[in-house]
Amino acid sequence: MNAGASRTRPIRCDAQSGRVVVLDQRRLPHETVFRTLATAAEAVAAIRTLTVRGAPLIGVTGAWGVFLAARQAVAGPAGRRELEEAAAALAAARPTAVNLRRAVGRTLKAALAAESPAERARRAAAEAAAIEAEEIEACRRIGVHGLPLLEALAAGRRGAPVNVLTHCNAGRLACVEHGTATAPLYAAHQAGIALHVWVDETRPLNQGARLTAWELAEAGIPHTLIPDNAAGHLMQRGRVDLVIVGTDRTTAAGDVANKIGTYLKALAARDNGVPFYVALPASSLDGSLADGIADIPIEERDPEEVRWVEGWDGRGTARVRICPEKTPAANFAFDVTPARLITGLITDRGLCRPDPEAIRRLFPDEAGGAGAPGAPC
Amino acid sequence: MNAGASRTRPIRCDAQSGRVVVLDQRRLPHETVFRTLATAAEAVAAIRTLTVRGAPLIGVTGAWGVFLAARQAVAGPAGRRELEEAAAALAAARPTAVNLRRAVGRTLKAALAAESPAERARRAAAEAAAIEAEEIEACRRIGVHGLPLLEALAAGRRGAPVNVLTHCNAGRLACVEHGTATAPLYAAHQAGIALHVWVDETRPLNQGARLTAWELAEAGIPHTLIPDNAAGHLMQRGRVDLVIVGTDRTTAAGDVANKIGTYLKALAARDNGVPFYVALPASSLDGSLADGIADIPIEERDPEEVRWVEGWDGRGTARVRICPEKTPAANFAFDVTPARLITGLITDRGLCRPDPEAIRRLFPDEAGGAGAPGAPC
Repeated sequence: MNAGASRTRPIRCDAQSGRVVVLDQRRLPHETVFRTLATAAEAVAAIRTLTVRGAPLIGVTGAWGVFLAARQAVAGPAGRRELEEAAAALAAARPTAVNLRRAVGRTLKAALAAESPAERARRAAAEAAAIEAEEIEACRRIGVHGLPLLEALAAGRRGAPVNVLTHCNAGRLACVEHGTATAPLYAAHQAGIALHVWVDETRPLNQGARLTAWELAEAGIPHTLIPDNAAGHLMQRGRVDLVIVGTDRTTAAGDVANKIGTYLKALAARDNGVPFYVALPASSLDGSLADGIADIPIEERDPEEVRWVEGWDGRGTARVRICPEKTPAANFAFDVTPARLITGLITDRGLCRPDPEAIRRLFPDEAGGAGAPGAPC
Repeated sequence: MNAGASRTRPIRCDAQSGRVVVLDQRRLPHETVFRTLATAAEAVAAIRTLTVRGAPLIGVTGAWGVFLAARQAVAGPAGRRELEEAAAALAAARPTAVNLRRAVGRTLKAALAAESPAERARRAAAEAAAIEAEEIEACRRIGVHGLPLLEALAAGRRGAPVNVLTHCNAGRLACVEHGTATAPLYAAHQAGIALHVWVDETRPLNQGARLTAWELAEAGIPHTLIPDNAAGHLMQRGRVDLVIVGTDRTTAAGDVANKIGTYLKALAARDNGVPFYVALPASSLDGSLADGIADIPIEERDPEEVRWVEGWDGRGTARVRICPEKTPAANFAFDVTPARLITGLITDRGLCRPDPEAIRRLFPDEAGGAGAPGAPC
């Protein structure tokens, strides 16, 4: 079986029954729980609460959310308004990843091209399924284009593992299959290249410790969990050969928004001459923005996510407060890594330098504000 | 009351009864528990388990540990051997902070200058008390020398707070009073300067979330807890005016070993033009080492500290596992920040550029391997 393909697939939709089933990623790795989303509002809640997370996956979930809305909407102009409102709520469920509003906009546009409720739902389902299939294929191609980087590092090592560091989870759980940052790893593992992955735990929500560690174990790729603080030390001692991360939104200039802390790892990589790559499908590129730091909206989440840590207490899922009762906290979900710190982008169309010229050449269709809802993808 | 002086003092010794009482910092902030150390072995355990932690405090605890050993040792050469063995165990309890082996060596030397067990114990107690008093005074002076930095930043702000970021706990809990990194903050707070402190949680053991947040709340200094990942984002957005951290060992060239993750914050500070200062007493300077990255031993601790997080579950102290059951983890306790990333050292003798020349001028007595056990401090 392909190591990057789903064993436990994070989303499945049955267009016939109109039910979208998602894996509840808040409960991983301790429990495997599936949730059925029956309405667009439930899809909004699933995205907002991180039941589903990861830029490509929340895009796909948003698209299926439009389908759920279309199934319930009435006919005519009233139904159009209903659908538009549901789509706006879906697109606004989280602000940073461009995939969400793009996939929602695209599915809404497809649905509204028809008039009858049944046909709108049918077209929304077809568009959501197309987006899902495109994301899977884009991730597969990221693997194809990233593999040579790992092959080059593995050459002459006589089987000693290539040490890769990754942050957060840009794995198949964040996508549908293969993942973005993990796609080259799964491809390399399949090609027989010895790998070892340093997994940043990724506070505050520990997507590395919970999800990436789980995914890599399932795929049989050796890995070691480290605190987010450890990356600089490891790079300083020559113990990281390559960093690969994902992205929630990448600008036309190659600035990369990704999980909070990515920027610190990029700084450490530059200071130690370690190549730092960002893996992304076209759906995470926002050609409408030039300056990532000024323009990408950074989500601020509930400070309780910082003050409390969830985990397994031996009997079940539990949470503990790690600070005094009244300590205030801040919870910025993403940061922006400037293009100047990035060695290259591993895209579904090939490797790309993180500069406006190279990005425009590889993605001419993304140049003019493709991030706007409803704009062609 | 002086904000930096102990309300809950982390160590107290009654030389008369021969009992050393320490605040169990593993239980903070949720519970205030004191432990009595009656033997040198118990002092070793307290240092190793982080019941006491922080470079100056483990030095002081080590010194009192020699006193505990001296109280139990027999007379003559056999007693000398006993005492030397106890001191060796104390000095080896943790490898990175130079304060420990220096304070232990110094107390051992004082004790061994006498022959009778009673006199050895008396001299050890006097030396340990002197080291403790010196550490308190050094921290107070760090506050005096660091205050002008905060005054300069506060000038012209019309009361808007100066935003300081700190990592781990280099507060009075890490010392005896005042703290190192916190001493200038307490001095500024007393001087009426408005401050706001960004408190890195400091995974894996959350000394920031648990101890620094607790200390700052007790002193009435506004602060906000952030994940270790957030520092770069905040600096990029101009929300940090100054970074001050402590150190476990600083070389003759100004390379600084401190809690894992310090190096990443220093990189972010440099990338954003934020001044990055390290506060240290002479006791943390190791003139015998030049190259911090090559020469400072970095402690590796139990991976279980990474895999599990302790906190308060509403009823008591509890712990949760944050990763799959079999995920391997690595736990490097410190990293080294090269001198080139450091704006200045705030020492008990004044501000100092982090270069060999400036350090030698300010600390001529530390130039020749002062870190060796028994060498003069």
